[in-house]
Amino acid sequence: MNQLYLDRLGRVCAEIEKKGLAQMIVSDPLSIWYLTGVWIEPYERLYALYLRTDGKHKFFLNKLFVIPEIDVEKIWMTDTDDCIGTVAAAVDAKADMGIDKSWPARFLLDLMERNPGVRYVNASSCVDNVRSIKDEYEKEKMRESSRLNDACMEKAAAFVKAGMTEKECADYVRSLYQAEGVEEGFNTILSFGANAADPHHEPDDTVLKPGDCIVIDMGCRKDSYCSDMTRTFFCQEADPDYAKIHDLVRKANEKAESLIRPGVRFCDLDKAARDYITQAGYGEYFNHRLGHSIGLQDHEPGDVSLSNTAVVQEGMTFSIEPGVYLPGKFGVRVEDLVLVTAEGCEVLNKVDKHWKTIG
Amino acid sequence: MNQLYLDRLGRVCAEIEKKGLAQMIVSDPLSIWYLTGVWIEPYERLYALYLRTDGKHKFFLNKLFVIPEIDVEKIWMTDTDDCIGTVAAAVDAKADMGIDKSWPARFLLDLMERNPGVRYVNASSCVDNVRSIKDEYEKEKMRESSRLNDACMEKAAAFVKAGMTEKECADYVRSLYQAEGVEEGFNTILSFGANAADPHHEPDDTVLKPGDCIVIDMGCRKDSYCSDMTRTFFCQEADPDYAKIHDLVRKANEKAESLIRPGVRFCDLDKAARDYITQAGYGEYFNHRLGHSIGLQDHEPGDVSLSNTAVVQEGMTFSIEPGVYLPGKFGVRVEDLVLVTAEGCEVLNKVDKHWKTIG
Repeated sequence: MNQLYLDRLGRVCAEIEKKGLAQMIVSDPLSIWYLTGVWIEPYERLYALYLRTDGKHKFFLNKLFVIPEIDVEKIWMTDTDDCIGTVAAAVDAKADMGIDKSWPARFLLDLMERNPGVRYVNASSCVDNVRSIKDEYEKEKMRESSRLNDACMEKAAAFVKAGMTEKECADYVRSLYQAEGVEEGFNTILSFGANAADPHHEPDDTVLKPGDCIVIDMGCRKDSYCSDMTRTFFCQEADPDYAKIHDLVRKANEKAESLIRPGVRFCDLDKAARDYITQAGYGEYFNHRLGHSIGLQDHEPGDVSLSNTAVVQEGMTFSIEPGVYLPGKFGVRVEDLVLVTAEGCEVLNKVDKHWKTIG
Repeated sequence: MNQLYLDRLGRVCAEIEKKGLAQMIVSDPLSIWYLTGVWIEPYERLYALYLRTDGKHKFFLNKLFVIPEIDVEKIWMTDTDDCIGTVAAAVDAKADMGIDKSWPARFLLDLMERNPGVRYVNASSCVDNVRSIKDEYEKEKMRESSRLNDACMEKAAAFVKAGMTEKECADYVRSLYQAEGVEEGFNTILSFGANAADPHHEPDDTVLKPGDCIVIDMGCRKDSYCSDMTRTFFCQEADPDYAKIHDLVRKANEKAESLIRPGVRFCDLDKAARDYITQAGYGEYFNHRLGHSIGLQDHEPGDVSLSNTAVVQEGMTFSIEPGVYLPGKFGVRVEDLVLVTAEGCEVLNKVDKHWKTIG
C-alpha cells in the first residue's frame, strides 16, 4: 500500500488507541477513500473498513464492487449473504467497538444483537480529526477547487439579469461546473429578494426584479475536494438600508477571518462575528452557526459555532459565513473558505465581498 | 392535516403496534415527506418525526428548516442545542423504541446512552411496508416517470456515436433530464465494451468503437418518483456470440416478468431468471440480484433476490434486471420497472428490448 495511506492509517490507529479502543468500523465511503484510495458508492449495500490497532485490518466488500488491488485482507460478500453475520464473526466480539458516526442503524442494531455485551462507541473523531488537518497535497487541492469556484462565481454574477428565474440562474451555475468537468458540491442556492430570508431556500420560479437582493451560495467538488462560497448582490439598485446590512455582514466576516490562527477556539470566532452583528441590533436575525469545516465533504465535523470549544489547528479548512435574514423581506450572507496557516489564515476565495449591483 | 397523510400515518402506526412497539423515530427525509408532505434536506442536522401509537407524534426540527404549517407538535432546536438530549427527554424513556434503518450511529449511540435499559429495534419495515404499496396517485406518478425515461432513452440511443466518450454520452443524458426539468435519479451508467463487464462502471473517457456493446442504465426523479431502466445496444455491428447472450438475458427478463402476480415470492422470480441463464451456462456471470424495489427512492427495501422470501403484492413497483458480465470483455443488462396489478403486472418501460445496432 502507498506510503500516504499507511501514514494516514497509522495516524487514525493512534487516535483509536488514544480513545481506549483496539478496533473500529469505518463506513463513510469518503473516509475509506482517504485511508485506502478506494472509491465505492455502496448505496444500500454493506461496505466497511474494519481497523485494528494491531494492523490486522479487514475490508468488507460486495462482489459487485470493483476495486484496485490493495494490501488489506478482503472479505467478499454477495447480495444474498448474511452480511452482518459475516462482520460479527470477523471482528473481536469481546472488545469494545468503535463505530463510524454515519453507520446506518440497520447495520449497527443488527451487529449489536449478534455481538452483545460490549460497548459500541461513536469513534468517528478518530478519523475525522486526522481528515481535518490537510496535508500539502490536500491544501493545494482545496485552493484549486476554490479558485475554480471563484471563476464560476464571477461568471454567474455576470449572467444574472432582471427577468430571469432562480432556477434558470442555478441551472447556469450547474452548466458552468459541467463545462469545467467538476461536480456540483451541493444544491446551489440562488435566492432573490424575500426568498433570501430563508438561508436554505431552494431555487424556484421566482423572477428577479430590480431592487432585489441576490444570494448565490455555490460550491463544486474538484478532484474530490470541495469549495463553498456565498456572495450577495443587488439587482440594478440597492436599498440603502439593506446595503448597510450587507456592509455589516461583510465586516463581521472580515472580523472573524482576522482572528483566525492556530490556538484560537472555534467558539470565539463565532462569538466575534455574532457580537459584531448583535451590537448593530441584528443578532436575532443571524440564526445559524458562523461556519463549518470542509474538505472531502462540503460539511465536515468541526462547527464554527458557540458550542465548539475545540481550538483551530494549522491545516484546517472551514467556512466563515455570517448572515442576516429579515423574514419576508431580505437576506444577506457573505461566505469564504479559509485555510489555517502557521500564523493566521489564507482566505481561499478572492471574489470581492463588497456589495455591488448586477443584472 | 390532509387526510392522505392521516391515512398513511394510521397505516404506519398499525404496523408499529403489530411489531409490539408503541413509539418509533422516523428519520428518512423521504419517509417524513411521505407521512407529512414536509420536505427538508437536513444534511448533518438532526431531523426526525417521532411517532407514537397513541397519536401524540412530535416533530424534531432545526430553526433553519422552513416548513409549512402542519398539525403535529413541533420541537424546534438550534445548531448549538443539545439536540439528542432534547429527543431523549421528549420520548418515552421506559418503553422499547423503534428506529429508522438509516438513522446514523452518531444519533443512535447517543440516544442509547441517554436512555439506557430499553430495547432499540430496527422498525423501518413499519414505514417501508406501507411505502411499498403504491396508491393510485403514486402509480400514475411511477408511470409518468418511466414514460419520460423511455423518451430520454430513445433520444440517448439516437445520440450515441462511435468516437464519443462515455462521459460525453452520460452528460447528454443529464442534459435531457435537465431540459425536462427533472432530476437525474442516480449516476447514469454508460459503459462501452469491456467496461460493461462491471455492472456499476462509472462513465470515463473511454471512446466508443464499432463492435462495442453499449450499456445505458438511467433513471430520473419526476415529481419525487423514480424511474430506472437499462438497455444494451451494439455499436454498428454485433458479435454473434454476444448478440446471443443479449437474447438470453432479454428472455430471462421476459421470463421473470411473465411470472409476476400477487402471491408469487420475490425469490422465485429471481430463481426463474437465474435458472434460465444458468441452464445456458452463464449463471456465474449473473452476479447480482434480479432487481430492487423502487418508489420515492431508486433502491427501496424489497430485493428481488434469492434471499427474499416475501410475497409480491398488488401496487408494488420493482425492477427486473438480469445481466451477464464477462470480465475484461463484455456485459449486457436488460432492465424494466414493473407495477404489480391484481392479476399480473404492468411493465412500465416500453422501449424495445431486443438488441440492435446504433451509433
